[in-house]
Amino acid sequence: MCELFAMSSLFPTSISFSLERLTRRGGAEGPHRDGWGVAFYTGRDALLLREAGAASESELVRHIERHGPPSECVISHIRLATFGGRTLANTQPFSRELGGCMHTFAHNGDLEGIHTHLPATGSRFAPIGETDSEWAFCRLLDRLAALWDQRTDDVPPLEERHAVIDDYATTLRTLGPANFLYADSHTLFVHADRRIDIDSGAPLPGVYLLERSCHEEVPDLAASGVILKTARQALTLIASVPLTDEPWRALATGEVLAIENGAVR
Amino acid sequence: MCELFAMSSLFPTSISFSLERLTRRGGAEGPHRDGWGVAFYTGRDALLLREAGAASESELVRHIERHGPPSECVISHIRLATFGGRTLANTQPFSRELGGCMHTFAHNGDLEGIHTHLPATGSRFAPIGETDSEWAFCRLLDRLAALWDQRTDDVPPLEERHAVIDDYATTLRTLGPANFLYADSHTLFVHADRRIDIDSGAPLPGVYLLERSCHEEVPDLAASGVILKTARQALTLIASVPLTDEPWRALATGEVLAIENGAVR
Repeated sequence: MCELFAMSSLFPTSISFSLERLTRRGGAEGPHRDGWGVAFYTGRDALLLREAGAASESELVRHIERHGPPSECVISHIRLATFGGRTLANTQPFSRELGGCMHTFAHNGDLEGIHTHLPATGSRFAPIGETDSEWAFCRLLDRLAALWDQRTDDVPPLEERHAVIDDYATTLRTLGPANFLYADSHTLFVHADRRIDIDSGAPLPGVYLLERSCHEEVPDLAASGVILKTARQALTLIASVPLTDEPWRALATGEVLAIENGAVR
Repeated sequence: MCELFAMSSLFPTSISFSLERLTRRGGAEGPHRDGWGVAFYTGRDALLLREAGAASESELVRHIERHGPPSECVISHIRLATFGGRTLANTQPFSRELGGCMHTFAHNGDLEGIHTHLPATGSRFAPIGETDSEWAFCRLLDRLAALWDQRTDDVPPLEERHAVIDDYATTLRTLGPANFLYADSHTLFVHADRRIDIDSGAPLPGVYLLERSCHEEVPDLAASGVILKTARQALTLIASVPLTDEPWRALATGEVLAIENGAVR
């Protein structure tokens, strides 16, 4: 099924979601009962809609299907609970302010033992819920805070942010599947790891990417549950599984991409 | 008009909002075009719905009118822009995580010169937008962080939190009208200051309170735009103006109340 979805675009795009259809893509049966969330960026802030219940029974999901707001960066997560109860606090994406920007994070995988392997010593970022994923986000922000605190009035250089995320992702992969989406309101970062096939236990690619420049048609994703109301423009899409018949690229394990204004940097 | 609204209850209450009717209460004409927001607490986290546009044109407001989620603590704000542009980042309530809890803040008034009077030296809380209100929230969290960082696994004592907020409110009142709602997921704090009557310029009470114990009828607020689907239970309501004909109590200037489980502590 599709658990992670993200979009980056050059101009704000009106994006509507059918989370039900998105989860069915890839063959998942039945409703994803443990929660869902979508972050819609606008400038340095984001509207974060989340619920701990089943998307199939959610009136807020119905609202998003009809009236998703325009955004230049969207991160979405659909939850099958592994760590932690079915509560709002355990529902992704997670968010924190750092350096006057809203940072959001969504993770797919299991990071066993992360609490002991990556302790929170002296951290200013504390998890609200109990998931391994939120813990991983807080520890990522610990490492990025040094960069953001130093800046005076601008975003830290992309190379420096990328290096911190690259290094951190290498550590996370030793704990378990660590596919994640992370946005800091300027850049959308994607880290690809492996997925474990539920039936066979075989490793599969964790994240797929489709990039479209201003000269190309924007793909029709309606069958997968995503409606983009957009004229031609630069657009990059990320998903746990390919959402159309177009040639989505499977990212390699350990690949970290930085995406801005609809294009991979 | 009503700009601030809050509810605290003993048991989670399904609460629906007509922000349009809420703003008309007290005689405001026309739509509040600059934004609106509602925080619905559930445990230590909160769902925060906000938009920078007019509530009267908002499909998300229509959604809340029909399907407001159950919550034991709600904070709402309706914006008439004074400082800062009409952006999501300038739209209240504001939120930050501190000590593993979601903290939210909504303010009514103008705090002139707050950026110079209360500088951000060494702060880890940076505003995302440009409002005086978000700046005030960040400086409040600076003062509270010392308490929350010390705690091991529980919330800091109420008396200590109350003392910090009391002291801070005294400072804020020297800068201008400083009516605010602040929740830390355990306690809803209300600070009452003055309101300036738009027509006469005369000072009016800034905040009104209505408290109902388990033995009393919950008031019918439908005419004011608030629908409470609740059996008898302890309930406290806060608003910029009385929302019913019942005897709402005008808080005194400088009064700081701590409300938990639907009752003033």
